[in-house]
Amino acid sequence: MSRHLLSIADLTVDEMITFFDTAAEMHDVQRREVKKLPALRGRTIINLFFEDSTRTRSSFEIAGKWLSADTINIAGKGSSASKGESLRDTVQTITAMGVDALVMRHSASGSAHQVSQWVDSVVINAGDGTHEHPTQALLDAYTLQRRLGSLEGRKILLVGDLTHSRVFRSNILCLTALGADVTVVAPPTLMPSGIDTWSREAGFSTSYDLDEELPKAEAVMMLRVQRERMTGGYFPSAREYTVGYGLTRDRLAVLGPDVPICHPGPMNRGLEIAADAADAAQSLVLDQVSAGVAIRMSILYHLLSGDGTSA
Amino acid sequence: MSRHLLSIADLTVDEMITFFDTAAEMHDVQRREVKKLPALRGRTIINLFFEDSTRTRSSFEIAGKWLSADTINIAGKGSSASKGESLRDTVQTITAMGVDALVMRHSASGSAHQVSQWVDSVVINAGDGTHEHPTQALLDAYTLQRRLGSLEGRKILLVGDLTHSRVFRSNILCLTALGADVTVVAPPTLMPSGIDTWSREAGFSTSYDLDEELPKAEAVMMLRVQRERMTGGYFPSAREYTVGYGLTRDRLAVLGPDVPICHPGPMNRGLEIAADAADAAQSLVLDQVSAGVAIRMSILYHLLSGDGTSA
Amino acid sequence: MSRHLLSIADLTVDEMITFFDTAAEMHDVQRREVKKLPALRGRTIINLFFEDSTRTRSSFEIAGKWLSADTINIAGKGSSASKGESLRDTVQTITAMGVDALVMRHSASGSAHQVSQWVDSVVINAGDGTHEHPTQALLDAYTLQRRLGSLEGRKILLVGDLTHSRVFRSNILCLTALGADVTVVAPPTLMPSGIDTWSREAGFSTSYDLDEELPKAEAVMMLRVQRERMTGGYFPSAREYTVGYGLTRDRLAVLGPDVPICHPGPMNRGLEIAADAADAAQSLVLDQVSAGVAIRMSILYHLLSGDGTSA
Repeated sequence: MSRHLLSIADLTVDEMITFFDTAAEMHDVQRREVKKLPALRGRTIINLFFEDSTRTRSSFEIAGKWLSADTINIAGKGSSASKGESLRDTVQTITAMGVDALVMRHSASGSAHQVSQWVDSVVINAGDGTHEHPTQALLDAYTLQRRLGSLEGRKILLVGDLTHSRVFRSNILCLTALGADVTVVAPPTLMPSGIDTWSREAGFSTSYDLDEELPKAEAVMMLRVQRERMTGGYFPSAREYTVGYGLTRDRLAVLGPDVPICHPGPMNRGLEIAADAADAAQSLVLDQVSAGVAIRMSILYHLLSGDGTSA
Repeated sequence: MSRHLLSIADLTVDEMITFFDTAAEMHDVQRREVKKLPALRGRTIINLFFEDSTRTRSSFEIAGKWLSADTINIAGKGSSASKGESLRDTVQTITAMGVDALVMRHSASGSAHQVSQWVDSVVINAGDGTHEHPTQALLDAYTLQRRLGSLEGRKILLVGDLTHSRVFRSNILCLTALGADVTVVAPPTLMPSGIDTWSREAGFSTSYDLDEELPKAEAVMMLRVQRERMTGGYFPSAREYTVGYGLTRDRLAVLGPDVPICHPGPMNRGLEIAADAADAAQSLVLDQVSAGVAIRMSILYHLLSGDGTSA
Repeated sequence: MSRHLLSIADLTVDEMITFFDTAAEMHDVQRREVKKLPALRGRTIINLFFEDSTRTRSSFEIAGKWLSADTINIAGKGSSASKGESLRDTVQTITAMGVDALVMRHSASGSAHQVSQWVDSVVINAGDGTHEHPTQALLDAYTLQRRLGSLEGRKILLVGDLTHSRVFRSNILCLTALGADVTVVAPPTLMPSGIDTWSREAGFSTSYDLDEELPKAEAVMMLRVQRERMTGGYFPSAREYTVGYGLTRDRLAVLGPDVPICHPGPMNRGLEIAADAADAAQSLVLDQVSAGVAIRMSILYHLLSGDGTSA
């Protein structure tokens, strides 16, 4: 197993399954009254977020605390970086204090990989630009697997903004590696150039027509559309997006009551997902959040415990 | 006992007294060198503050840590809420991680009550708009009781901005329930419409004349006047407010040296309270702060320990 | 030993050496897998930073956590201070909660000393205006001593902005007390008025010519030049500063490979220090960061443990 978690591309399927198996045990801890394991006592984890985040930062903080690690939050704003310090100096300084893991989010694609070459501590990518968000993809796949069993050959739709989404990118890598039959659905303006080559090589399908794909889906993952894209000429209006690519009430009826619905949040209710879909019994949105803590406990445990139990 | 602490109105007098009794025990812990009880080990408390706060947030954080809980702070600014997420989705996401208590402050009156219907965790209202701030009222009553003994029949003045103060509102409910003889004193522009009916039903008095009430007072609670009201047409000038309703040096002399003075802070010295009054031997301002931690430990203990000791 | 750590001037040499000796033991803890000592269990430390800081705040937070203390961060922004509360009320309120130590940074010179007279808890100065930053000076001297052995008679250059640097001021006090032969080097515009009297009384030398001093140096400490000074008329341009006072590649060659280089960070690479110098084998920049945690653990331990082991 790699020392770091930078990209889904670095993981073997066996390693993913190891993460899932441990996450399942951690999930049980989460339901206990006393949610505390001694595994990482005396280890120090820094959450270094150069971009705002509620759920990912909190999820890592809770995961670290439940494993008895010391967790420290550093926001990019107000940090030395804003005094003109280079990213390299910032991360080398932080880790020189004696830090075991650096969980980082940064707006630059590739930053986590770059940082891993500069520091001695374990680096966990919590989102780097439009590149990857590997822990999100792992928690999504884990959540779907708990519902569907093996993902081998299961038809899963990823719907939304492929061009700008690191969640999308990590999910495609993860789901195809696990053997899922993935179809990505997006308006032409949000399909990246080179998607044909990529999809051929990686083994997934593309479509511009959500209504054609929906009846065949065994799971649907709706991605957040960032409102700032609305004015970027990607599509005429929010309403237009919803009409073409939103999981509306009508489309929910087409989907049937047993097909799970995922969304990584935060949701734009009424835009990419209708309230009826978000709150449907088949919605896994809050299961994803809960699984997020379990997956991050599992990852921290395997990368930091160093007791030979890692795969 | 209710699962949540949303409003003083939800508490019986017996429950208040249970909170006070446990707070007195916690107060002893606070004076120890090792301030740590194992009671809430493995429980997770989120401080979700959509409005800035130093003392209330820190007080809850310290209370949680001394009870060995894991405490996590989330500020409204920089949270998913600022990405357009609904309050419901924000709180459901946070609590889905496996959170035991959500301590929240929000600018919307009624928000804590609303949130308690959306989430599984215990909700503690740390201030909701101009509605209530129940832990402040409990610590105020606890502090006064330690000084005065029973509040039954004791004449207590609440002086200041009744219209905009959640502290005022919670205090009236709490003090009248404990049998105090409460008189609220404010300029006519800061008396809410309907005060006559409210005071008759709730059993407190109103007055526009501080100098008439002061000689009869057995305790005085000065409320913060928000400087932004100064320009809102509520009174001509800061000086005017002080002349009519400030606890000035002259009024301090009228009060006599044994009548306790409270203020929830932060104080506007020279506006609603003179430095001489704030720093007088009879001032309980710092006692209130200290009691705040003890009361919050007591509340967290009773709502979270679930060991059958709650009333 | 004083109850507080406000200024290097308050420390005897024996006390400094006590801090260094304990820091050396703490440094060993830092290299362990389980970095945790029970020494300050149940003590509460507040980091109250009115100015932004990454390294100092994080360093204190890590130091406190590794000693098992409860640590709480309060930022000046968003605190009651921004609601018009006086500094005195803010710190008295915070410490009234039952706080054992207040680690504070504030833009006003002398503020830490002032605060120590207002509160019961231990006060540790983490930087007060242009006055002092004693923990930085202690970690710098500790780092140099580990490399050089005794500093007695060793020629150490402090290069940079003497007028505006609290690090400079604390370092001169600390290094001269330890017997070092200190020369401060700065452009005339950044030498404070009165430097002649000060240097004569305190026993250090001054120079405007870095190139003359460099060949004799046994250690060089480069200080950060704040970019805002660039436009303040202190020198014509950044390039001009580098030409006269930067530790450039050429000057690094003059220095020789065994002379240690320090910088408290954050560094302006290419301005006061060239990348070659910052990253040289003889650079102690990251050793300083690591020592910072050890020194702060030592200071917290001696000021808070109260078990008779302090000097």
